Amino acid sequence: MPPTRVTVWNEFRHERNPDHPAATVYPDGIHAAVAEALLGQTDWSVRTATLDEPDHGLSDSVLDETDVLVWWAHMAHAQVTDEVVERARMRVLDGMGLVLLHSGAMSKLSQRLLGTSCRVRWRESGEKERLWVVDRGHPVAAGLGEYFEIPQTEMYGEPFDIPPPDDLVLVSWFPGGEICRSGCGWHRGKGRIFFFRPGHETHGIYYQPEVRRVLRNVVRWCAPTPDTPTPRFGNQPPLEPGL
Amino acid sequence: MPPTRVTVWNEFRHERNPDHPAATVYPDGIHAAVAEALLGQTDWSVRTATLDEPDHGLSDSVLDETDVLVWWAHMAHAQVTDEVVERARMRVLDGMGLVLLHSGAMSKLSQRLLGTSCRVRWRESGEKERLWVVDRGHPVAAGLGEYFEIPQTEMYGEPFDIPPPDDLVLVSWFPGGEICRSGCGWHRGKGRIFFFRPGHETHGIYYQPEVRRVLRNVVRWCAPTPDTPTPRFGNQPPLEPGL
Amino acid sequence: MPPTRVTVWNEFRHERNPDHPAATVYPDGIHAAVAEALLGQTDWSVRTATLDEPDHGLSDSVLDETDVLVWWAHMAHAQVTDEVVERARMRVLDGMGLVLLHSGAMSKLSQRLLGTSCRVRWRESGEKERLWVVDRGHPVAAGLGEYFEIPQTEMYGEPFDIPPPDDLVLVSWFPGGEICRSGCGWHRGKGRIFFFRPGHETHGIYYQPEVRRVLRNVVRWCAPTPDTPTPRFGNQPPLEPGL
Amino acid sequence: MPPTRVTVWNEFRHERNPDHPAATVYPDGIHAAVAEALLGQTDWSVRTATLDEPDHGLSDSVLDETDVLVWWAHMAHAQVTDEVVERARMRVLDGMGLVLLHSGAMSKLSQRLLGTSCRVRWRESGEKERLWVVDRGHPVAAGLGEYFEIPQTEMYGEPFDIPPPDDLVLVSWFPGGEICRSGCGWHRGKGRIFFFRPGHETHGIYYQPEVRRVLRNVVRWCAPTPDTPTPRFGNQPPLEPGL
Repeated sequence: MPPTRVTVWNEFRHERNPDHPAATVYPDGIHAAVAEALLGQTDWSVRTATLDEPDHGLSDSVLDETDVLVWWAHMAHAQVTDEVVERARMRVLDGMGLVLLHSGAMSKLSQRLLGTSCRVRWRESGEKERLWVVDRGHPVAAGLGEYFEIPQTEMYGEPFDIPPPDDLVLVSWFPGGEICRSGCGWHRGKGRIFFFRPGHETHGIYYQPEVRRVLRNVVRWCAPTPDTPTPRFGNQPPLEPGL
Repeated sequence: MPPTRVTVWNEFRHERNPDHPAATVYPDGIHAAVAEALLGQTDWSVRTATLDEPDHGLSDSVLDETDVLVWWAHMAHAQVTDEVVERARMRVLDGMGLVLLHSGAMSKLSQRLLGTSCRVRWRESGEKERLWVVDRGHPVAAGLGEYFEIPQTEMYGEPFDIPPPDDLVLVSWFPGGEICRSGCGWHRGKGRIFFFRPGHETHGIYYQPEVRRVLRNVVRWCAPTPDTPTPRFGNQPPLEPGL
Repeated sequence: MPPTRVTVWNEFRHERNPDHPAATVYPDGIHAAVAEALLGQTDWSVRTATLDEPDHGLSDSVLDETDVLVWWAHMAHAQVTDEVVERARMRVLDGMGLVLLHSGAMSKLSQRLLGTSCRVRWRESGEKERLWVVDRGHPVAAGLGEYFEIPQTEMYGEPFDIPPPDDLVLVSWFPGGEICRSGCGWHRGKGRIFFFRPGHETHGIYYQPEVRRVLRNVVRWCAPTPDTPTPRFGNQPPLEPGL
Repeated sequence: MPPTRVTVWNEFRHERNPDHPAATVYPDGIHAAVAEALLGQTDWSVRTATLDEPDHGLSDSVLDETDVLVWWAHMAHAQVTDEVVERARMRVLDGMGLVLLHSGAMSKLSQRLLGTSCRVRWRESGEKERLWVVDRGHPVAAGLGEYFEIPQTEMYGEPFDIPPPDDLVLVSWFPGGEICRSGCGWHRGKGRIFFFRPGHETHGIYYQPEVRRVLRNVVRWCAPTPDTPTPRFGNQPPLEPGL
C-alpha cells in the first residue's frame, strides 16, 4: 500500500501572538508538533496548511494529495470560508479521513459534517484529565493501558452536542467532576471522522508520548479504504429483467 | 401527557399543477393525506404548512407550537430559505422531532442535520416495494408483520449517502434488484429524526393503512421526551472543590 | 393500551441476614423498594419474585404475565438454575423487557443475553456518584437535568466488559477517578434490555427520587412494543414467482 | 507487525459423505478452500482444524497461536462440546477475532457471544444473491463496487435474530423477495466478530474472487489490535487521594 498522505491544518493564530502562552509552548505552531508526532514512526508523508495561506492552504490540488486531514482550530472558526468548508466536506464524503482535534470539533467543517452544534461545557482550568478506554479492542486504543493521563489541560465535559458516535473509544474523567466522550468515531459517506479531545494551546499536550500514539492510531483508522470506487447515484435502470 | 402537536410541511407544488398526476392522486396536497393519517387514531393536534406561505409557514410562533415536524419535498429544495432551514435545525437540536418522508431526505434541512449528501440511486418505475422489518421490537414496527408491501412506488436504492442509522428498522426490497435502508432513526441533540422512504407523489401511498400505521408510529417515536431542560453549555465552574 | 405488568426479581439474601446492613436499609427486600418506586406514579401492575421461591418465582405462568422483568442479584448468581435463565432469555428474545440493576449485570441471564463476561472494576467505598446524561433526548433521561448525584454508593468503573450499548444514556463520574457507562440499552430479538448501574445493597439508593424516576423511565422504555407478531423463521417458500 | 495467524475451523461432515454434493464441490473440505483464499495474497499463516479431531482441533495450544478463528458449521452444531465453545468464547473476549461464515452464525459459539437465537428465514433454492455495500468506506468493502453477485446460493433472509450490528456493511437481495443483513461486525470484549453470509456447501462460493477478497478483508478487520493489555477487573483502590 502507498504511504498515507496527511495534511495537518492549523488556524495558527495563538502561536503567532508573542503575548500568548502558545507562542512559547508551540513556537512553530501546533501543526508542527502534530506533524512531528505523525512522522515519528511511520512512512507517511505529512504536510501542513494554515488559515492565513491562500485558500487556507487547502486548494483542490492539496486536497487531491490528502488522504487524511487533521484539523485544529479555536478562535477563528468564522474566518474559514464556506467554500473551503464545502470543498473539504465533499472530500470527506468521498473518502478523505478527518481528524478533529480539541476545539476543532466546534469548527464549521465539523458542524457541517456532524449536523449538530458541537457545543460543550468547558473550563480553562489547567486541571488533569484521565482518559479511560471503553472499547479496548478498537484500533485507536492500540498501545494504551486501561487509561492514560494528561497532567494539565482545558476541561471539556458533557453535555457535548455531538451525534452518538458510531465508535466510542475514550471517555475522560476530570477532577472538577465532569466526564466527556473524548475519542469518538463516525462514518460519513466513504470517509471516516475521529474526534480526539486533548489539546489545549497553552499546554504541550501534543508532545506527550501517549497522545502521539493515539494521533497515529487515529490517522490510521481514518485512512481511506483502498479500491472503493465512488458509487453511481441518480437515475439507474433495473438490474433485473421484466420491469 | 399533553397531546403531541404535529406540523406537516409540504412543498405542495406537484399537486397544484393540473397536468401532474399528483393533482389527481392528492387533490388537497400530500400534507392533507399525511395529516389525515395522523389524525385518524390519536388525540394529537395536527396542522399543515407549505412552501409558498410566508416564512414557508414555519414562523417562530408555529415552531413554538410544534412537537414533531413532518417534511415532504421534492422539486423545490433549493427554494427553502437558509433562514428557515437553520431555524428548524435549531429546533430539532432543542428537542423537536423531525420526520423525513421520501424525497424529503434530500432536502437542505436533512442534509444540514445529517451532514451527508443524502444522494440515492433511484428509478421512477411504478414497481413494487416490500419493506422488511429488521428490528421487530422497535416502536416504529408496532403493528407490522415480518414485512409489508407497497404495490407501486418509485425505487430508491443503495448506495444511499446517509450516516449509519442509530436505529435501523426497515429495509426495502425492489423487483428491479435493489435494496434500501428505508426506516432509519437518528438522535441529534435533544431531538430525534426518522426517515421513512415510501411516498412518491404519483401513487396514493399515504392512503395505505400500513403506511399510515407507520406514520403514527414514527411521529410517536420522534415526539420530544418530556421534562428535559436545555443543558447549559459554555464556561462552567467545577462541581468539586479544590481546583 | 393495557397497563404494563412488571415482575421485580431479587435474589433477596443480603436483606435476610440480620448482621448485614441491607437488613436495616431494605427490611422488606430490595424488590419491595423497587416495586414501590414503580407503583408510585403509574397504573402498572407490579409483582415480585425471589430466588428461594419454587422455580425462583419465575414459572412459565408468571412469565406469561410479565411484560418487563427487573433483575437484582449479587452474591448468588450461581444458584440461579440454567433452566430458569434459559426460560427468561427466550422470553426476552420474544419481547419481554429486562432491566438489569447494579450487580444484576453480572448475572448468568445478563451474560447469556449480552455474550460478554460483564466483569467490571469495582470498589466498596461509599463514595459519591455523579451520573451525567449523554443522550438528553432519550426517554430514559426524562425529568433529569444535566446530571444527578447519589451521595453514597459502590463504585463500578471501566473497564466494563459489556457490548457497545445500542443506546448510551448515562455515564458516571466517581471521585476516586473512574468513569462508568451506567445507563445502557440494547435491543435483543423483540426485547429490550437496559442496565442501570446504581444500587448497592448497603445504601438506600432505591428510595431516592431521581433514581425512582429513572427506574420508571427504564421500565417504560423496555416495555414490549404492541402488536408485533413473532416472526416465522426457518424454511420458507419464495414470495416472488418464477424461482 | 508479525503476520496474522488464522485458524480455519470446519465441521467437515458434508464433504466426507460421498453422496453429498459437497464431496464434489469441496473435495478437500470447505476449510481448504477458505484457507486457500486467505493464503493467496497475504503473508498470513493459516492452519485448519475440524470437528472430529481431538478437542475439535482447538486445544489451548492451537488457540494460543490463533489471532483469527474462522468458523464454518451446519449440521453438527450440537456436537461441539460446551468446553470448546467456552474456551473459544473467552479467547474472543480476550482479543481473538472470529469470522462466522454462513450457517456458522447458528453455532453455539455464535449464540453464546451474540446472545440471540441467530435463527433466520432460509430456502435451499440455488437462487442468485446480490450483496449491496451499505458502508462503502468500511475496510470490509475494500475492492468492491456498489454490489457483487453470487450466481447460486442458499437464501437467508430477515427476520434474522442477531443483535443490531455495530458495523453493517453488506445487505443481500434475493430474487425470491427477501433481504438479509449479510455483512455484520460486532465488538465483544477485546475481540471483533464478523458474520459473512455467503457460503452454502453445495455451491463453490468460496472459490469466487469477490468472495475471497471479502474473506481477506474480514480477517484483516477482525485481527487483534496490537499492544492492548488485558485490563484489570475486580476490586481496585482509588486513583485519586482523599477517599
